[in-house]
Amino acid sequence: MKAGRYYGPGDIRVENIPEPVLTSDQVKILTVCGSDLHAYLTESPGYGSVEPHPITQETFPVTLGHEFSGTIVETGPGVDTTKWATGTNVIMKGSCDTCSQGYRNLCPHIGFIGITGWGGGLSEYIAVNVRYLHTLPQGISLEIGACVEPLAVAYHAVKRSGFTEDKTALVVGAGPIGLFVVKVLRSLYPTSTILVSEPATIRREFALKHGATQVFDPTNIIIPEAIRSIVAPGVDVAFDAAGIQASMDASLFSLRARGTYVNLAIWEKTATLNVNLILVREINFTGIVGYDRVHEEVLSLIASGKIKGLDELITKRISLDDVVEEGFKKLLSEKDKHGQYTYMFFDNLSLSAGLTVKILVHPGSRSPNL
Amino acid sequence: MKAGRYYGPGDIRVENIPEPVLTSDQVKILTVCGSDLHAYLTESPGYGSVEPHPITQETFPVTLGHEFSGTIVETGPGVDTTKWATGTNVIMKGSCDTCSQGYRNLCPHIGFIGITGWGGGLSEYIAVNVRYLHTLPQGISLEIGACVEPLAVAYHAVKRSGFTEDKTALVVGAGPIGLFVVKVLRSLYPTSTILVSEPATIRREFALKHGATQVFDPTNIIIPEAIRSIVAPGVDVAFDAAGIQASMDASLFSLRARGTYVNLAIWEKTATLNVNLILVREINFTGIVGYDRVHEEVLSLIASGKIKGLDELITKRISLDDVVEEGFKKLLSEKDKHGQYTYMFFDNLSLSAGLTVKILVHPGSRSPNL
Ligand SMILES: [Zn+2]
Ligand SMILES: [Zn+2]
Ligand SMILES: [Zn+2]
Ligand SMILES: [Zn+2]
Repeated sequence: MKAGRYYGPGDIRVENIPEPVLTSDQVKILTVCGSDLHAYLTESPGYGSVEPHPITQETFPVTLGHEFSGTIVETGPGVDTTKWATGTNVIMKGSCDTCSQGYRNLCPHIGFIGITGWGGGLSEYIAVNVRYLHTLPQGISLEIGACVEPLAVAYHAVKRSGFTEDKTALVVGAGPIGLFVVKVLRSLYPTSTILVSEPATIRREFALKHGATQVFDPTNIIIPEAIRSIVAPGVDVAFDAAGIQASMDASLFSLRARGTYVNLAIWEKTATLNVNLILVREINFTGIVGYDRVHEEVLSLIASGKIKGLDELITKRISLDDVVEEGFKKLLSEKDKHGQYTYMFFDNLSLSAGLTVKILVHPGSRSPNL
Repeated sequence: MKAGRYYGPGDIRVENIPEPVLTSDQVKILTVCGSDLHAYLTESPGYGSVEPHPITQETFPVTLGHEFSGTIVETGPGVDTTKWATGTNVIMKGSCDTCSQGYRNLCPHIGFIGITGWGGGLSEYIAVNVRYLHTLPQGISLEIGACVEPLAVAYHAVKRSGFTEDKTALVVGAGPIGLFVVKVLRSLYPTSTILVSEPATIRREFALKHGATQVFDPTNIIIPEAIRSIVAPGVDVAFDAAGIQASMDASLFSLRARGTYVNLAIWEKTATLNVNLILVREINFTGIVGYDRVHEEVLSLIASGKIKGLDELITKRISLDDVVEEGFKKLLSEKDKHGQYTYMFFDNLSLSAGLTVKILVHPGSRSPNL
């Protein structure tokens, strides 16, 4: 079968590899959607290595794709087929579940499908232990199912932030993850004030359409001043989905005393922090990575219609064969064309939604949905 | 009367100034103890300015001393003398109380006795509105009373940290504030694990005597490794009373996932922060400044004997006339002699306890206690 395999930064090859062989408690899934640029430009911890990964024992190359859904096409002999029947649509729950500290997403040895080995969504098939799967409820398409992974990240961030209905939020960066934060906030807190800073016009329009109260262009305006003109003491929570010095500074200076800064972005560089600012305002500076057992809640928000409009966020569909040229490379070259210099980095992080495209791998005639 | 007045970094002069004249709701206090080096070496925000302070309207020079106690020697005509009788021992509660945001310590325009104007403890007398005073309970000496201010800082930090009996703490830097954090933790949580990192032998001994479970010398040992050899996943809370890159790094790497970093020190430089570390461990990075209405609780901990041994921390008494030569300058020159290079900066921050001396201004025959 074909698979998009990661050999290191700048080197992803679509190759023919043997179809996975099932062990007793695995099912075979027809992957429909996989997406990731996290590691294409620079090395990312966890994304394969020349040393065997502590959990998966795999080395380069690893098959990419951790944001995907699929349909069960074969079940191992130990699988309960009343729950995991062939034809069932499923999504991944993400990481290994053996962390001794109890936080699945914070385990230093974390094993994560599509990142550290175990196969990934950028392939025709993947064999997965059913404990890492969640069934996709009726009425939620496989395409939407593939959005659950980044939505889970946004949902986890909102939960960790301590946000409540009467609070005010600033979201910096309305790329896929920032947009999903807006979406989750608006779904959970219909009357709350959600302000968004984003330099790209099309993303600001997306943000307004998907829940922002007001949007600002940081290339034209001083964000903390704009925020304070609306919420005088500053916002309660700032979500940073950009992960650069400018987004961190804008966030911190826009917070009220004892406000919370939640970083959702992987940083390429170290930050310069004026700790005295944290001190004199008693700011809570925190960050999140991934999620931990929130898929059930996210799926029920989608199923109940509280989170809606996700289909509007899928802007492009490409085949697995074209994933490097039309996916990874195009996103990197178009990034320059769009001139989003401030948040350029973010474009390389994820391509699930917003201005960026959702890579929907076409597995041909095997797919029941396409 | 004599007063130690701050003209800017490196310039504190003991001068004769007029005794304060009372307004209707003020009492006149015989100051006994004042201490501060915060602003002697470098400019500190709030410590006087050529521009009038927004609350006190004062410019350079300002009389220093915000950690002090005193005895009422005269009362203004509007003062309730059944509560504030001449002869009553009192301490300061600190800052102005008009902040519209409700956090007295986080007001951007904060007025603070002994820092921003309004007189200070480094003088023979100070006139203070009674709303900024707290009576010192019977049995607590004026010397101990002068320690309540830094104790309140430590108490506030422990409260904000979310520490509970079953948690583990690392305290980095066992100077006055770090030592007081150890003292408050041990007083409130008798069976908790409190680990201390401190390069100076005498301070480590102080820390052990005053509540530390175990102490470590960061010049001989890698702190995160030492901490994890005792508390395998890392500590729940790290209190940073040093405020330098090395203390922040040691703290962050010693924390467990979702642990809390509380910075108590004013920083001279900006810090370099690997935000991805905050992210992959979902660390809470926060800081505190001052305190907000905790004096009542701190005084009752002292009165009930839960916080004890404070008298052992007062290591030197000098007169107001000698405050520059024997106080500020000696502390700066002795700092080098002691060779505490790593935590050198901290010695300049406060001199209330530990290896540093407590400057106890002798006001001569007027003092009822000396
Ligand atoms: Zn794990
Ligand atoms: Zn992702
Ligand atoms: Zn105020
Ligand atoms: Zn102080």
